[in-house]
Amino acid sequence: MNKQIVRYVVGRLLQVEALLLILPLIVSFIYKEASIYKMSFFAVIIFLLVMGQLLAFKMPTNTRLTAREGFVIVALSWILFSFFGGLPFVINGDIPSLVDAFFETSSGFTTTGSSILTDVEVLAYSSLFWRSFTHLVGGMGILVFALAILPKIDSQSVNIMKAETPGPTFGKLVSKLSTSARLLYIIYLAMTAVVVLLLYIGGMSFFDSLLHAFGVAGTGGFGIRNGSVAPYETPYFEWVIGFGMLVFGINFNLIYLFLIGKFKQVWQSEELKWYIWIVIGAIGLISLNLLSTYDSILKLIRDVFFTVSSIITTTGFSTADFGQWPLFSQMILLLLMFVGACAGSTAGGLKVSRVVVYAKIFVAEIKRMANPSRIVTVLYDKKSLNKNTKHSVANYLVIYFLLFAGILVLITLDAPDFLSGFSAVAATFNNIGPALGVVGPAHSFAELNDLSKIILSFSMLAGRLEIFPILILFAPRTWKR
Amino acid sequence: MNKQIVRYVVGRLLQVEALLLILPLIVSFIYKEASIYKMSFFAVIIFLLVMGQLLAFKMPTNTRLTAREGFVIVALSWILFSFFGGLPFVINGDIPSLVDAFFETSSGFTTTGSSILTDVEVLAYSSLFWRSFTHLVGGMGILVFALAILPKIDSQSVNIMKAETPGPTFGKLVSKLSTSARLLYIIYLAMTAVVVLLLYIGGMSFFDSLLHAFGVAGTGGFGIRNGSVAPYETPYFEWVIGFGMLVFGINFNLIYLFLIGKFKQVWQSEELKWYIWIVIGAIGLISLNLLSTYDSILKLIRDVFFTVSSIITTTGFSTADFGQWPLFSQMILLLLMFVGACAGSTAGGLKVSRVVVYAKIFVAEIKRMANPSRIVTVLYDKKSLNKNTKHSVANYLVIYFLLFAGILVLITLDAPDFLSGFSAVAATFNNIGPALGVVGPAHSFAELNDLSKIILSFSMLAGRLEIFPILILFAPRTWKR
Repeated sequence: MNKQIVRYVVGRLLQVEALLLILPLIVSFIYKEASIYKMSFFAVIIFLLVMGQLLAFKMPTNTRLTAREGFVIVALSWILFSFFGGLPFVINGDIPSLVDAFFETSSGFTTTGSSILTDVEVLAYSSLFWRSFTHLVGGMGILVFALAILPKIDSQSVNIMKAETPGPTFGKLVSKLSTSARLLYIIYLAMTAVVVLLLYIGGMSFFDSLLHAFGVAGTGGFGIRNGSVAPYETPYFEWVIGFGMLVFGINFNLIYLFLIGKFKQVWQSEELKWYIWIVIGAIGLISLNLLSTYDSILKLIRDVFFTVSSIITTTGFSTADFGQWPLFSQMILLLLMFVGACAGSTAGGLKVSRVVVYAKIFVAEIKRMANPSRIVTVLYDKKSLNKNTKHSVANYLVIYFLLFAGILVLITLDAPDFLSGFSAVAATFNNIGPALGVVGPAHSFAELNDLSKIILSFSMLAGRLEIFPILILFAPRTWKR
Repeated sequence: MNKQIVRYVVGRLLQVEALLLILPLIVSFIYKEASIYKMSFFAVIIFLLVMGQLLAFKMPTNTRLTAREGFVIVALSWILFSFFGGLPFVINGDIPSLVDAFFETSSGFTTTGSSILTDVEVLAYSSLFWRSFTHLVGGMGILVFALAILPKIDSQSVNIMKAETPGPTFGKLVSKLSTSARLLYIIYLAMTAVVVLLLYIGGMSFFDSLLHAFGVAGTGGFGIRNGSVAPYETPYFEWVIGFGMLVFGINFNLIYLFLIGKFKQVWQSEELKWYIWIVIGAIGLISLNLLSTYDSILKLIRDVFFTVSSIITTTGFSTADFGQWPLFSQMILLLLMFVGACAGSTAGGLKVSRVVVYAKIFVAEIKRMANPSRIVTVLYDKKSLNKNTKHSVANYLVIYFLLFAGILVLITLDAPDFLSGFSAVAATFNNIGPALGVVGPAHSFAELNDLSKIILSFSMLAGRLEIFPILILFAPRTWKR
């Protein structure tokens, strides 16, 4: 492995995080917060700038950046961003424990939204801002952002963007990668601005609109009030946030195609069609299941729409207490947690495109078994699906479940019961947020021990980065010689 | 599809079931049971002989028997065996409900061991015998048995044996199939006889020894006392049954090789090595986890050995109440339920050989992602694993989990809580037996509604037959034209 390029890129990236931390520093000035808050952000900014400069002092002569270096850079930078991004909370005392701060910041960057905080309303504005802002940055990707603003490392950095972008395949918008990254971020920020505006028009304060929009855009789900979105409950906000989450669950390549007028290509996307049908199907089934318990059909549809949108996009905002819904409805939601939204969006989970391929493998295998001499092809987007893609999608499920089982066994050393342990792993590995049982919406992850928090932080990172970067970082071969 | 051959073979098979039913009829004479018991078996025997003869009256001119016919014959005959095999219980009143009787008999033939009975001790000897005897027949396979005694349909019946034998690959012992089937059954019955003898020597009555041996051989797990094996609790019985289950979890092809003296081939089997290491590893981890709660190390090892053996072979006999063990130990057991024992044994689950391939895919995919240009081969039994086998093993997991999720959703329409629903599906789909919650060892499946019992019966059949026969039976294409 080319350690020099890893050192250099990671150094530059730490300086990028320093730049990002200027925003909460500004917030702490705007709200005239105690000097410890200003200090906490300022100290970390200086530290990151200096350390980044030390690491990236010398441009390496060998700039070879293969898949392995790409994965390592992505894994390392996400872990370091989460660690250093948590330091201000430790310094200013909003989250005194280093492990808790690491958990909370990983949860932010990975757009999971699981929290160790039992009372978010005591946090300073600057802390609340930074906590939600990590959703915005992590949603589109730390390195995609860096690529957008650091054109110098463009040459082979397709391997970085590949390693960070969720989904079974990777497509650039335009041929030049830094232009792609910039376009993606411009679309992403513009869409976020629309959400801010819509919430603000509806009567939410600008600060609250901004932070909720970050949660929607990154499909993160950190609430800024105890009780998530429920305290704001008005139909208007529910519809805006509900639709917003769904839109941010769409592949950004499709949104780009839509914006440049290529409607036909958008319409032909098989993943989008399935995504829409899965959402409609889930809303239909759950609504039928709940029909007798609601007086108002409109309220029923609104609650179910919001919940389905929040769960399939792995955001984790909540208005209705779906823990009280019948088991059938909860099971549909549990399946949606594993499905996730579209590849190339800010959502977690397996992604709709993979699940579609799984459904097609299911049918194809039955045909093949019944008639072994027959050649069975799997069609995707009206083309025969590439064999390698098909196999790596199937293998992904193998890896997904083995790792899931491994994390689950470790968590049961601490978790008090099966439901809490299972849901904690499912909620972090799929980047959803709140789990069930002792880590459910009414509680927080604070009740777990430090080892579990660290394991679940890695579960979130592995989930967001689709497993490989984290595993390759820890593979012995990566560090040989 | 060649419906004529299906009709013919299924007809002959029903007559085979009539022959099997003679045994419980004899038992009812030996124990001088009320005439309703003799009647119930006699009536079903006559009915099956007549119906079988009507179906198989004319040998079809076209004896083509492809994979599809093989799957359909296997699926149909298992469903019909379970249905007609349950009729005596309905007639003699031991299990008055038709659905319950179908559930119980499916559970028997599939060697699951889940029961709708809350009190097994009220059953007649003949009923108890027939119930446990289904384990013996189902363990090695209904059709493998038929092939052993009906040499007429030998020509293309490899497709039948393939469809019924669990595991990712299929190997015959000797070139002639009916000889293979006969050899398998001779070894199987001889091993069962050894277990009977060992239990009888230990002081168990002959009848009890016989029925327990059936449960061990088929890795089924129907108890004949309320409280499973616990009422017999002596260290000797625990060791005999514990070791017995483990041995019946080994691939019978290996046992054959062992018996004909090819020790080197047995020793080189990768599946066997992993099977042994998984058992040792699980016993080690659980023992460590329980160490502080036991006074006697010997008792601890015995309980853990018995439980691990019972769970990994998907038998379901119990001595210790592992529902009270710490969550970590329970999680290890839960994973063993999904692993199952070796391919080509009487056990359920995914099978060790598949799990080994999954572990190797896990490592291979990480290598391939880190270095896409590298050619990564997966070694199995010291040979490069056939690509098609590798892909169908990976695809099997896709199908396994999709079907699992589908059954789970249907069961949640009835199950009262997540644990009961999830464990009911896991216990039936993996052919284990007792589940947790309201369908746990202290309760029975009687508490579910009829629809759930039917769904879970198909879950057991799908699990035992490794999914494809049941799906192909219901595929529209199978019945076209």
